[in-house]
Amino acid sequence: MEHIPQVFWLIPIASVCALGMAWYFFKSMMRSEEGTPRMIEIAEYVRRGAMAYLKQQYKVVLIVFVVLAIVFAIMAYGFNAQNEWVPFAFLTGGFFSGLAGFFGMKTATYASARTANAARNGLNDGLKIAFRSGAVMGLVVVGLGLLDIAIWFIVLTWFYADKMTTSEMLITITTTMLTFGMGASTQALFARVGGGIYTKAADVGADLVGKVEANIPEDDPRNPATIADNVGDNVGDVAGMGADLYESYCGSILSTAALGATAFAASSGDMQLKAVIAPMLIAAVGVFLSLFGIFLVRTKEGATMKDLLHALGLGTNTAAVLIAAASFLILYLLGLENWLGVSFSVITGLAAGVIIGQATEYYTSQSYMPTKAISEASHTGAATVIIKGIGTGMISTCVPVLSISVAIMLSYLCANGFDMSMSALSIQHGLYGIGIAAVGMLSTLGITLATDAYGPIADNAGGNAEMSELGAEVRHRTDALDALGNTTAATGKGFAIGSAALTALALLASYIEEIKIAMARVGTQMTNVAGETIDATKATIPDFMNFFQVNLMNPKVLVGAFIGAMAAFLFCGLTMGAVGRAAGKMVAEVRRQFREIKGILEGTGTPDYGRCVEISTQSAQHEMIIPSLLAIIIPVIVGLLLGVAGVLGLLVGGLAAGFTLAVFMSNAGGAWDNAKKYVEEGNFGGKGSDAHKATVVGDTVGDPFKDTSGPSLNILIKLMSMVSIVMAGLTVACL
Amino acid sequence: MEHIPQVFWLIPIASVCALGMAWYFFKSMMRSEEGTPRMIEIAEYVRRGAMAYLKQQYKVVLIVFVVLAIVFAIMAYGFNAQNEWVPFAFLTGGFFSGLAGFFGMKTATYASARTANAARNGLNDGLKIAFRSGAVMGLVVVGLGLLDIAIWFIVLTWFYADKMTTSEMLITITTTMLTFGMGASTQALFARVGGGIYTKAADVGADLVGKVEANIPEDDPRNPATIADNVGDNVGDVAGMGADLYESYCGSILSTAALGATAFAASSGDMQLKAVIAPMLIAAVGVFLSLFGIFLVRTKEGATMKDLLHALGLGTNTAAVLIAAASFLILYLLGLENWLGVSFSVITGLAAGVIIGQATEYYTSQSYMPTKAISEASHTGAATVIIKGIGTGMISTCVPVLSISVAIMLSYLCANGFDMSMSALSIQHGLYGIGIAAVGMLSTLGITLATDAYGPIADNAGGNAEMSELGAEVRHRTDALDALGNTTAATGKGFAIGSAALTALALLASYIEEIKIAMARVGTQMTNVAGETIDATKATIPDFMNFFQVNLMNPKVLVGAFIGAMAAFLFCGLTMGAVGRAAGKMVAEVRRQFREIKGILEGTGTPDYGRCVEISTQSAQHEMIIPSLLAIIIPVIVGLLLGVAGVLGLLVGGLAAGFTLAVFMSNAGGAWDNAKKYVEEGNFGGKGSDAHKATVVGDTVGDPFKDTSGPSLNILIKLMSMVSIVMAGLTVACL
Repeated sequence: MEHIPQVFWLIPIASVCALGMAWYFFKSMMRSEEGTPRMIEIAEYVRRGAMAYLKQQYKVVLIVFVVLAIVFAIMAYGFNAQNEWVPFAFLTGGFFSGLAGFFGMKTATYASARTANAARNGLNDGLKIAFRSGAVMGLVVVGLGLLDIAIWFIVLTWFYADKMTTSEMLITITTTMLTFGMGASTQALFARVGGGIYTKAADVGADLVGKVEANIPEDDPRNPATIADNVGDNVGDVAGMGADLYESYCGSILSTAALGATAFAASSGDMQLKAVIAPMLIAAVGVFLSLFGIFLVRTKEGATMKDLLHALGLGTNTAAVLIAAASFLILYLLGLENWLGVSFSVITGLAAGVIIGQATEYYTSQSYMPTKAISEASHTGAATVIIKGIGTGMISTCVPVLSISVAIMLSYLCANGFDMSMSALSIQHGLYGIGIAAVGMLSTLGITLATDAYGPIADNAGGNAEMSELGAEVRHRTDALDALGNTTAATGKGFAIGSAALTALALLASYIEEIKIAMARVGTQMTNVAGETIDATKATIPDFMNFFQVNLMNPKVLVGAFIGAMAAFLFCGLTMGAVGRAAGKMVAEVRRQFREIKGILEGTGTPDYGRCVEISTQSAQHEMIIPSLLAIIIPVIVGLLLGVAGVLGLLVGGLAAGFTLAVFMSNAGGAWDNAKKYVEEGNFGGKGSDAHKATVVGDTVGDPFKDTSGPSLNILIKLMSMVSIVMAGLTVACL
Repeated sequence: MEHIPQVFWLIPIASVCALGMAWYFFKSMMRSEEGTPRMIEIAEYVRRGAMAYLKQQYKVVLIVFVVLAIVFAIMAYGFNAQNEWVPFAFLTGGFFSGLAGFFGMKTATYASARTANAARNGLNDGLKIAFRSGAVMGLVVVGLGLLDIAIWFIVLTWFYADKMTTSEMLITITTTMLTFGMGASTQALFARVGGGIYTKAADVGADLVGKVEANIPEDDPRNPATIADNVGDNVGDVAGMGADLYESYCGSILSTAALGATAFAASSGDMQLKAVIAPMLIAAVGVFLSLFGIFLVRTKEGATMKDLLHALGLGTNTAAVLIAAASFLILYLLGLENWLGVSFSVITGLAAGVIIGQATEYYTSQSYMPTKAISEASHTGAATVIIKGIGTGMISTCVPVLSISVAIMLSYLCANGFDMSMSALSIQHGLYGIGIAAVGMLSTLGITLATDAYGPIADNAGGNAEMSELGAEVRHRTDALDALGNTTAATGKGFAIGSAALTALALLASYIEEIKIAMARVGTQMTNVAGETIDATKATIPDFMNFFQVNLMNPKVLVGAFIGAMAAFLFCGLTMGAVGRAAGKMVAEVRRQFREIKGILEGTGTPDYGRCVEISTQSAQHEMIIPSLLAIIIPVIVGLLLGVAGVLGLLVGGLAAGFTLAVFMSNAGGAWDNAKKYVEEGNFGGKGSDAHKATVVGDTVGDPFKDTSGPSLNILIKLMSMVSIVMAGLTVACL
């Protein structure tokens, strides 16, 4: 193990610490009281529904994984078109991603009743349980991510150490590890799409019949779809979100490591190794600082919304500031070439994340003009609420796109010493900087994800309190916790999409490396810019771009870009359609129960919650297949028909259009949700007014926008890159 | 004039024929009776409102034009950064584009009452007047387009003939002429955006208060906004559409001519000249065949919707088939190199146009499943109608994008003899093929635009019949004509966006030429792929791409692509917001009149139509400025900050995302409109049911989708390219 530097061991240590603390938070949450028998009963319903769904989901995903692993095995062993580790890396990626979602969800389903029960004592107790349970999820994700990375790094180093030079070894190891990202992406996509369809079918169905037709409040136990709605929060917002961010986290670290291996290939093997482990170290230190931030989050009784926001903000912002400072120290001590510039790249990523989060809050919170204006449009009915919301969502793409653009340019320039010459080396170093920015943005994931996963726990606690009839004061406290969750969810989504964009860019560069390696494996040669025949692995990025004519006048690139943009829209269209169909089935079922089961609305008959859970589960399983497979198939077909130039066009077109579309959909959805809340707070006529009805339409339309299609796009963007990377061998074989 | 071949004179002849026939159709329409005094009175209201709007609009546009012309003059004469003809070419382009819209609208406002009056005699009489009046617009657009092109070609040839070689002259002439496209684009954008805001503010306002609140039918004279609504059809759908397609028509011909001049620069000057005039000739022959098609359109009394569609289809399809056949003949007789392949490029464009039109019809007509399913979603309320419509619209992007993609690849390959080597010459010839495909798609514009402009005339005729209380039978006939117009409008929009995409691609290539010329003018040199210093005009496309690093790993290209995609969304968001605000003002005004003017709803008081017309006019003028200026400013700023690579990224990102977004918005809007009609036909509860109310919400949301934001995107895409082309000198000066 002399090839592994001592400082590397900080990574598994951070991983173990994260998992240990997660275990500690889980145990201390489990020790608290679950509450009245009614509360326990309801929590049990939700838990059973959620676990049943996850079991069903994993069955379907398992089949997909077995099929894909066999395909990769055939490609690797049959045609030598791939590294032999790929099938295993793919499987572990999927396994760990699923595990992160599973643990997060298990915790969440145990925590909600306990949060509601703790809220009976006071706001701070409720916040503490909900937030620390959310932290379980955040810590499991970063812990498992670093564990997976550390194990593979050790195994592959041990395997390759004596077979090749350090430089070759690092390139081989990092590009091999990258393929476990595809496993994580695939699992994440199914989790996000399936979970997203599940939760919104239940939510939309419950709202349309319950709130609008039967005039009963949210989370009322008389509504047959209410348990399914609460289950949905867990499977969509917890398990789906966890798998998604697990994937971004690992994807950004791994692609940056791969970029580091190539960028510093010409330096000493030692420097190359430093570049490879730098992103892992930043992430590891981020774990410790996230933990520190988590312990800072606390509030006092009688806290206002502002106090609560302040409590969470203190934790996340402290972690962010500390990691910014720590980056300089880590990279300086590591002795990385141009450590100062690379540290600034970390900061550009962190800053872009913060700005996107702030912009998201501005465009989606009822404290600001845009959302208030959507509420005001309810004066003239539902149509103007929708028009205004779509307009606002579209305009809101401006700041996030500009932030990411500035982060791309600055992180590129900081990392290569402000060199715009586009020389081979300056490009490599610049791309490494973009990857580092993504790692920087995600380095505080331990705590940002905690604030995210906290949301559905608080939401479910509110549902439990309502169904258990705990009284107005408790419900008031859980409402305060829930409202806070809506804001943090919006910020979290901004983070998820911003990091996905930077990660996808880093993956783009990794794709080029994979193609070069695949060419070298099958013995295809390349010509460099000067026209000389060279070995593919020796090709610089300008050589590569020239050889494959990856420029904007190549019709293959242009067609690829068109198809990429279309893929994003098609994917959203399919998931929107899926939610519409599934919600329609739910509405029919709820109406049937109101009609056929006597006394439901009077509170004397018991609704058949199980049937609604089943409908959501089946619809989600059924509907998630086509959009998910599309994401896997499109890059393969484009690769076969249009080659490398077409794939790069596809990825860039999909990234640019998909990123913008995702921001639009998430923000429009969030704004509609809060525009409704603003009316419910007593503005423009308050609850029950025509204005309220108009904003309920907006909220319902926004549900699949913000919780199904929008967030799934993040994964679509990354998965298309990952599929291209893993299928590089196939594309090369068909050149 | 020995430099101008005899066959060239076919172009001004075609132009004169088109304008002459337009004059003849106009005169024969004017000779027919306008009807009862009430009909004349209403037509007069609409005409006055429309003209007042246009006058106001041209005032604002004039200011913008004067400012821009001064900027161009300073660039040309002060800094030698531009050809000296540019300011004049810019002004004539804007003037002719505005003139085309003006004539079309004048005709339309005279034709509507006459159509209603003719419909009193029978369906065929009504169709004939409406369609031939629409043909005035189609013929004026192609006639003025060819006239402008012919005049500039003659003037510039006369000016340059003795100053340079034929080859240099043709490149100079074609690239200079291209800049009048920017004048046309700028004027078109203002017309589309201003007209689009006008018409939808009035339409949405009239519907929300009239139909939904006061329960009075469409076009009821008791509704104060009804005249403004009818004016809107003229200024948005006629004047806006005319200016838009004038721009596409000229843009495609001119950019193809410019590509021909470069592609055949290495051939003899004679062959180069042939390549330059080939697109003009195809367009000229298209004029004659369009005229032939127009005369084929007729129907018999008692015709069904199917008969009417068949009548229009016979005209347009015959014209399309004939032009396909004629292309082979023209290019063979012209003696163009690879005439066979280039002819097939014409056919790929025509075929893509037809397929996009068919797909648009499938996704937006109530005869097919998608729109019926949207109607069906009204069972569960407005929210599911919106969700389903958005889902359908997004899915509907698939076929158009794939059609355009196939057309791009095939037209490229047909024109360069299936050469994928990406050699300098093969790229040039391939790009020429893409341009030719755009010309092919637009060659039948004389008749396709006639079917388009026919729509608002029939719509207004219906409005006139309703307000003049002409009786059920007449209204029934005008309804049949109007329903037909909705279908042709959808197809027309498909054509407009498809041709915009191909034209924008051709403009992309022209941009590269302009940059080269601008570099040569200021004496900047370039290095070729082999690293040798060369004169910029000698650079091939691979040299150019390599020199400016226009590849997908350049962060400037990536950032450009992000900003391009964002620009499309931002632009739509701003126009959606504008419609929302303007409609809100209209609603307030209509409510005020209902409240303050006694007896309006009883039919004893007269509404103040003029005030509503004024509100629409002022809102449109006020709201069109920011989105329009954005389209001009973004490419300039990107050019200054990110240079040539950034601009090309911007244009490709804007094109891919903008095209897909435009198809989504147009189709979703069309589908909602017809989903409402399907319910009104008596399905799912019919008029007045809850289902109907839900689809009215969908229709109202769809209004700005399909008539403001969606179609304006076509022009945004082209205008951003045009601005980049005209500003090439500035970008080069800041390199």
